[in-house]
Amino acid sequence: MLAARLHEYTEDMSRALSLDEVDKPSVEKPNGVVVEIDGAGWCQTDNHIVEGMWTDYVAQPLPMTLGHENAGTVVEVGPDVEVVSEGDTVICHPHVTCGTCRACRLGEDMYCENAKFPGLNADGGFAEYLLTNDRAVIPLPDGVDPMDMAPHADAGITAYHAAKKAVRELNPGDHAVVIGIGGLGHIGLQCLDAMSAAEITAIDLKEDARTLAASLGAHHTINPESENVADEIAAITDDVGAQQVLDFVGQDATTSLAPDIVAAGGDHHIIGYGGHIHEPSQALVNGEFAYRGTLVGKYTELQELVALVQRGDVDLRTSRYELDEINTVAEHLEHGEIEGRAVILPP
Amino acid sequence: MLAARLHEYTEDMSRALSLDEVDKPSVEKPNGVVVEIDGAGWCQTDNHIVEGMWTDYVAQPLPMTLGHENAGTVVEVGPDVEVVSEGDTVICHPHVTCGTCRACRLGEDMYCENAKFPGLNADGGFAEYLLTNDRAVIPLPDGVDPMDMAPHADAGITAYHAAKKAVRELNPGDHAVVIGIGGLGHIGLQCLDAMSAAEITAIDLKEDARTLAASLGAHHTINPESENVADEIAAITDDVGAQQVLDFVGQDATTSLAPDIVAAGGDHHIIGYGGHIHEPSQALVNGEFAYRGTLVGKYTELQELVALVQRGDVDLRTSRYELDEINTVAEHLEHGEIEGRAVILPP
Amino acid sequence: MLAARLHEYTEDMSRALSLDEVDKPSVEKPNGVVVEIDGAGWCQTDNHIVEGMWTDYVAQPLPMTLGHENAGTVVEVGPDVEVVSEGDTVICHPHVTCGTCRACRLGEDMYCENAKFPGLNADGGFAEYLLTNDRAVIPLPDGVDPMDMAPHADAGITAYHAAKKAVRELNPGDHAVVIGIGGLGHIGLQCLDAMSAAEITAIDLKEDARTLAASLGAHHTINPESENVADEIAAITDDVGAQQVLDFVGQDATTSLAPDIVAAGGDHHIIGYGGHIHEPSQALVNGEFAYRGTLVGKYTELQELVALVQRGDVDLRTSRYELDEINTVAEHLEHGEIEGRAVILPP
Amino acid sequence: MLAARLHEYTEDMSRALSLDEVDKPSVEKPNGVVVEIDGAGWCQTDNHIVEGMWTDYVAQPLPMTLGHENAGTVVEVGPDVEVVSEGDTVICHPHVTCGTCRACRLGEDMYCENAKFPGLNADGGFAEYLLTNDRAVIPLPDGVDPMDMAPHADAGITAYHAAKKAVRELNPGDHAVVIGIGGLGHIGLQCLDAMSAAEITAIDLKEDARTLAASLGAHHTINPESENVADEIAAITDDVGAQQVLDFVGQDATTSLAPDIVAAGGDHHIIGYGGHIHEPSQALVNGEFAYRGTLVGKYTELQELVALVQRGDVDLRTSRYELDEINTVAEHLEHGEIEGRAVILPP
Repeated sequence: MLAARLHEYTEDMSRALSLDEVDKPSVEKPNGVVVEIDGAGWCQTDNHIVEGMWTDYVAQPLPMTLGHENAGTVVEVGPDVEVVSEGDTVICHPHVTCGTCRACRLGEDMYCENAKFPGLNADGGFAEYLLTNDRAVIPLPDGVDPMDMAPHADAGITAYHAAKKAVRELNPGDHAVVIGIGGLGHIGLQCLDAMSAAEITAIDLKEDARTLAASLGAHHTINPESENVADEIAAITDDVGAQQVLDFVGQDATTSLAPDIVAAGGDHHIIGYGGHIHEPSQALVNGEFAYRGTLVGKYTELQELVALVQRGDVDLRTSRYELDEINTVAEHLEHGEIEGRAVILPP
Repeated sequence: MLAARLHEYTEDMSRALSLDEVDKPSVEKPNGVVVEIDGAGWCQTDNHIVEGMWTDYVAQPLPMTLGHENAGTVVEVGPDVEVVSEGDTVICHPHVTCGTCRACRLGEDMYCENAKFPGLNADGGFAEYLLTNDRAVIPLPDGVDPMDMAPHADAGITAYHAAKKAVRELNPGDHAVVIGIGGLGHIGLQCLDAMSAAEITAIDLKEDARTLAASLGAHHTINPESENVADEIAAITDDVGAQQVLDFVGQDATTSLAPDIVAAGGDHHIIGYGGHIHEPSQALVNGEFAYRGTLVGKYTELQELVALVQRGDVDLRTSRYELDEINTVAEHLEHGEIEGRAVILPP
Repeated sequence: MLAARLHEYTEDMSRALSLDEVDKPSVEKPNGVVVEIDGAGWCQTDNHIVEGMWTDYVAQPLPMTLGHENAGTVVEVGPDVEVVSEGDTVICHPHVTCGTCRACRLGEDMYCENAKFPGLNADGGFAEYLLTNDRAVIPLPDGVDPMDMAPHADAGITAYHAAKKAVRELNPGDHAVVIGIGGLGHIGLQCLDAMSAAEITAIDLKEDARTLAASLGAHHTINPESENVADEIAAITDDVGAQQVLDFVGQDATTSLAPDIVAAGGDHHIIGYGGHIHEPSQALVNGEFAYRGTLVGKYTELQELVALVQRGDVDLRTSRYELDEINTVAEHLEHGEIEGRAVILPP
Repeated sequence: MLAARLHEYTEDMSRALSLDEVDKPSVEKPNGVVVEIDGAGWCQTDNHIVEGMWTDYVAQPLPMTLGHENAGTVVEVGPDVEVVSEGDTVICHPHVTCGTCRACRLGEDMYCENAKFPGLNADGGFAEYLLTNDRAVIPLPDGVDPMDMAPHADAGITAYHAAKKAVRELNPGDHAVVIGIGGLGHIGLQCLDAMSAAEITAIDLKEDARTLAASLGAHHTINPESENVADEIAAITDDVGAQQVLDFVGQDATTSLAPDIVAAGGDHHIIGYGGHIHEPSQALVNGEFAYRGTLVGKYTELQELVALVQRGDVDLRTSRYELDEINTVAEHLEHGEIEGRAVILPP
């Protein structure tokens, strides 16, 4: 089958991946599942993987097929599989877990000690078929198109997971700030809106993104180039600050906003990455705020997100591309030129 | 009366404060309380104030009497005061709050919008008398000596507050790490021990501190000069990491331990300060951990700490000094040469 | 001034209260506030008070002016009052608290050890003026009519308080059941809808109430006379049960639904009262569910509810009556013949 | 092999079970595990099962081998099993779960939709061998004798689970009450003591039990025959009540204590059963307390309890009996004549 594979790390997105002919995967373990891909989302993390940004954190066997936002149709199941059958349409949770370590038993799939993450440290879904297991597939409700769902497998649950943590701390009258209304941010904003009665402010450099934010439920928008973010947040929140900030950008310029815009006792959630945090310890002490990392989301959270989508509470903006356009997608995303979320179709 | 006052910021602790003759305070508002000081703790934060480290965060009217860890005897009360009477011994919560802003109504005293913090932005307790109010005094149980309690007013509740946040996340078999077994750290360690069944590891450069830690309940100790902290924590925690880290140092060398020693989903609490956090956003994402700031503690938490002390669960090490030795104390603390917590006695 | 007062307990609502001429209250303590009533809600609890149902729980000095859902205009303030000024329109939190006991310091106003509850154990708001204090008044935003807000002072925050507890446990895809879509229930339903993405089922004997529920966001409605509630909930929830049940009725027939309709680990919130719980301990063990009582709500929750109203998330149905119609209102409510919430206007 | 089996429900414990010769179980599914029993605890629930008290809640195929508190040595594993190997000593979690339903994925083992509960609705451990699976076995640390651990499989985690819920709500200075210091209660008390700094009061009719409670950490004991429980709790708690009550008895006489002894906002945990709750809804409203059912505990909680035992924080009192004494044990427990927890040894 055809697969888009990473052979060496590069900053040049025009030659990020190459289309190779590889063997079709088949089930090896009793709980294995093979999914025929209907759509696979391209993610900012794919750019980061191509650049080699993950080599410090995880061992990657190259060449490797990328693609960790997958949805499709089950075509083969191992003998122990009961949650899905051949022919079922599914969305794939990105973490293929063991089910028996303490983290798995706690329901904390992302902390599994024995997991694979297809597209990050195993072959992913920019291909015709994907090998996963019965702990990483969720059947889709009737009438839901896998192609539309694929990006929820990572962009979606990451945004949902962060929003869910934030919502727990947000009361009516409290303020939430969403930084970066891109592929993840526009989902996070809708999750906040559906699950809380907080006042939402969206921050983005691009006018289109701010317009989108307003249409999706943001009560205020800020252009950080022409407006002083700290002053605007102070004005909007009556000098209290925002109880919860969701930072989908994670650059130095956004992490450094925290001391000025987070309310005492609040959180600045780090979801996007690429930049750094550089702050005096005293800043965190003085404002008693936290920088909280966010790593994808749990299997059960993906179930919850599917429920949100089914309710009509979350609307995902996608644009579709053929597999042989994949490096063009990589380049466009690098320059912020993708509308909504890019979905790669199989050959 | 005599008071130890800051006239100008300096790095030279030998002339940190000067002993001035000032007017004795008296009650101005109906809920005012004047306390005759029996003891006032000297805190690392006092050094930081003298150095001018708080000028970015709070307006300080100089000259100003320092001293924010106060205990003593009530000598004057305003007409509305009902919680204490003249002659009662009390420990003083350091935040003199309004009681009516939303933060106060939520029980979040430290976030009060209209508060004074004697010794930080108003005259403190290195003096014969202190002006506070009925929202910032807690009567002491019979038989408890105010001199022994004074440092709990800040060192104690700050450590307790951080430990309480940590305990909520610690199950039996989980691991807690305490960095810095000094004035705050040795209290935090005892609070963890009394309120959880977690396995505790103490990290300190000084052998005395490690010995103290072991005697107060630490199951493991690490000398960061001769041992590799990350390797040791990995060995102790079976490669999982510590679910909760209490960092009473807050220097670059301690904040940078987080990515290597905090378990997925865990917290690195920033309690000490002076240094910085410098980390890639990706580190927080990859490990899904948080840096959580800690600002003193609530009035009700000081009540809880008094209960812990009364139960015999927390034993505070103090050494006592006369008011005219105050700059010597400042110098000694700067060089880490204070045994336990220094308490300044009034003239 | 004129006031509607209870002289003796009776089952006969036609002579529930009598209109007496009494002294206008004036400020006695430095934090006292006198409010000129613009509207006061009549509550099912008023019927229960008249029947003597509260005598086992609280000492009531008769004769006593009823009315605990009050809103109006500040006409006199004590010398220490800073949160409101004469002329401000306010909604009155029903618990007039001390501010200094541990419960108050925790933000748990309803557990204050030294409180008065006007209309329950002190003179209430079915009168021209009400005496309260600065801890029990919340200024209303511009443009909000006190008459429309009055019932939120008890019906509103009680429903909000219960909904907030429930929302904390409700994930998208989970199910909430609201029993009784009357004065409180129709507010609770809207709060659930605004603050969660749960699937909501409303149960009520009356078709009008079910129609109202559907228009306010209920996804399913059940008529308990013609349908088997347990079967319907099983069908709606795929045999899992409802994670959260809000019982605004509290009769034997509704509390006994819990073992059959609450999901494992879920809660049956007791908000309405009048009936009993009669269940084997084993039922609670087998289903690991809880019966959780609900007592009004906190001051800060009333602030949050005012924010919800201002956002347009909660729409209160009221009908207005003159003070001299008050016993007619009592009778009508006894027979379930009040549309929305009755508000009594001052003379 | 020999097994103690229930053939028909009876009130006569002298003929509760009969010793039958049955087939030794063997692994059927790829994740199956056969354990050679080293010890199996006899539980009050076994008496209740014999009496037929569970027929309303669960379908029981008779004859059926009882015994749900099992520990022993692994003798056979299915091909997919990785968590244990032949020869490992294990404690058996009582719920043999599917691992794929939403409850299992949340970590909520007890709510599994496809589980078996050996000894309740499948053959249990009063026999030489037990069939379970890899989701229901926890390897024991070296040096821990399975015979000593067996009762922790149900008595232990049930008590731990309830105590853990309580501990989350208990601050230093708060009060916990433990009703019934028997097989479960004496474990629950030790868990409270190890995991909180609350003040503990133990209530039991028997002097031996109260003496045991005091030796295990109870600060106060009450004899409900000679003392007025409500008055004593009021005196001990300064009229506030106990924030958390753990009711290991669950009879009418104990559930009816709640309105008088639970603090506002607190919980009365129903762990023991056999009796009923009979309370007016108004009682729960007036005191805003909850009756919370408790159903065994999670797999991860049994891991946590094993850690507590290993730390020496929980000491289980057991007495050992031969399999052919099993009906004598049933009779003795019925009359409250078992010292500590009875463990049945295999033939």
